[in-house]
Amino acid sequence: MKIALDAMGGDYAPEQIVAGAIDAAQCFDCEIVLVGDQDKIQAQLDKFPNWENLKITVHHATEVIEMGEHPAAAVRKKKDSSLVVAAQLVKTGECDAVISAGSTGAAVTSALFILGRIAGIARPTIATPIPTGHGVTLLLDSGANVDSKPKHLQQSALMGSIYSECVFGVERPRVGLLNIGEEKTKGNEQVLSTYPLLENMHTINFIGNAEGRDITNGTVDVVVCDGFVGNIVLKFAEGLAKTLLKLIKEAIKNGGFLAKLGALLLAPTLKKIAKKIDYAEYGGAPLLGIDGCYIIAHGSSNKKAIKSAIGVACEYVKRDVVSRIRENMQKEEMLANDQEK
Amino acid sequence: MKIALDAMGGDYAPEQIVAGAIDAAQCFDCEIVLVGDQDKIQAQLDKFPNWENLKITVHHATEVIEMGEHPAAAVRKKKDSSLVVAAQLVKTGECDAVISAGSTGAAVTSALFILGRIAGIARPTIATPIPTGHGVTLLLDSGANVDSKPKHLQQSALMGSIYSECVFGVERPRVGLLNIGEEKTKGNEQVLSTYPLLENMHTINFIGNAEGRDITNGTVDVVVCDGFVGNIVLKFAEGLAKTLLKLIKEAIKNGGFLAKLGALLLAPTLKKIAKKIDYAEYGGAPLLGIDGCYIIAHGSSNKKAIKSAIGVACEYVKRDVVSRIRENMQKEEMLANDQEK
Repeated sequence: MKIALDAMGGDYAPEQIVAGAIDAAQCFDCEIVLVGDQDKIQAQLDKFPNWENLKITVHHATEVIEMGEHPAAAVRKKKDSSLVVAAQLVKTGECDAVISAGSTGAAVTSALFILGRIAGIARPTIATPIPTGHGVTLLLDSGANVDSKPKHLQQSALMGSIYSECVFGVERPRVGLLNIGEEKTKGNEQVLSTYPLLENMHTINFIGNAEGRDITNGTVDVVVCDGFVGNIVLKFAEGLAKTLLKLIKEAIKNGGFLAKLGALLLAPTLKKIAKKIDYAEYGGAPLLGIDGCYIIAHGSSNKKAIKSAIGVACEYVKRDVVSRIRENMQKEEMLANDQEK
Repeated sequence: MKIALDAMGGDYAPEQIVAGAIDAAQCFDCEIVLVGDQDKIQAQLDKFPNWENLKITVHHATEVIEMGEHPAAAVRKKKDSSLVVAAQLVKTGECDAVISAGSTGAAVTSALFILGRIAGIARPTIATPIPTGHGVTLLLDSGANVDSKPKHLQQSALMGSIYSECVFGVERPRVGLLNIGEEKTKGNEQVLSTYPLLENMHTINFIGNAEGRDITNGTVDVVVCDGFVGNIVLKFAEGLAKTLLKLIKEAIKNGGFLAKLGALLLAPTLKKIAKKIDYAEYGGAPLLGIDGCYIIAHGSSNKKAIKSAIGVACEYVKRDVVSRIRENMQKEEMLANDQEK
């Protein structure tokens, strides 16, 4: 199995990307192809004396798509950018999966332009794992599409369920529809029309509406929503975590000796919790619905996040998520036809 | 000034409601009318030997609207319920404000049926203060309406700005439109159409789009969104806080002696932070757009939350928020007409 890794995308590229690849190559049964500026990648690789013993190669690409660039224009123009070349390696069959921590917009665009969608899938969606302390909840769509139609949310439910099962090993994942109340009659037009579609699906375990609080309380495995809502929830969580951390640091700094001592003694315990809820432990977010494995890593990915993303890509390919989606799409259609007869 | 307080609404009614009224009556310059079952309220009041010296009276109401009841049906049927009677006291001019921690749906319905909307306001919105550690951000609408039209979000912006100024004392509150990116061209149809409306307003300080992370980072004072999104964000925050607290408690419980000692030493510092971000400190959420002061307190309000809600109601009435909304509505119209000429 070969993974194309965009070495130039992300806030800490190429340093943390290369370091993550080094770690992953020692853990997972795959070959990693670092795509990007050969000299810059080499300089990072040279920091690891043993790297030549690992299954890591470099694929040169001259350009880089920057964060501020217009996604479609950049992907069209910069044909030799690390992001575009990495996707091409999957298209040509040279690699089995692509991972990028670069611009999300450019990633989605390149995935659509180069790899295309699975037949029957109207829109790809970003599925982000949210740590709950005792596992993860998969939130999708977390930002690929806005103004989704009920049909799109239905496809998200199908794909999210398969991903949760294949990559996180959840048996019969509980799928919930993100809403403002438990009752079937609650919500906006979008979710009101989506509910009966999910209720009538045969390949998912739909448990009804999920509320905002359910995203982290462990009562649901897959939460389906529009990308507008999902993106706001995700960024809100990030902001809240930062605000809390800042407040705690401020308070300890301004606290007396006992507070400082307490913080010191409690630090190992808090670190354990931080590890449990660290998104970096759960790898990137797959772009589900693309005809190939495309993993979007967080822009501020460190080497741990990159290593996790590579692990996720390996599972994705090994469990053949794309074929599973295709099969279940057919099953849903077939069963729907059976009912109509 | 007289405040009608629904003594029977909320998870901890009437005990915590009455206790909150006792505290508030010693703090704020207002008379509190406890509305509900006289005997039950009396039993709570008797716990406070000095209550007869305070400006507190009881207004008997025989019925109670339960949390599960259908809002419109319950408000129509239970004419002698504490919630309906409390709103009637404002309608007849006997009281200046009403506060309830009961069913939000029933509160919105009774406000609409009994007090009605301010002329020109299409829909009332719930404005919830979100503590940021160094103040609050006002999030509205946090659940009164879904599928809001741009016009409704525009009115929310106007009302939220006035509320932030009058009740939280913020000068020229920074108003942001909740979106998935900073750029004007990002977002769903709803926010894309709302942006130019906000940009052309004269009575608010519109600073552009706000992202999820901005809700708690102190860069914006008023965040405008659809009630579907606002409600999900609020409940997500509640759920996340609970999950984090549970994880920390578990970790300390399973930790060794040093972790337990650390937690003990750090407790006073953490309590200070908890106080800063405790929603109970910031009172209830006003139902803006109603022709009268209607404050919705959280269902699980304790006496501190009730006391804060009473403080908020006093400011609302004193600063005459309703008239300010009416004035600014007219100002916006006049200026818009002037521009057209």
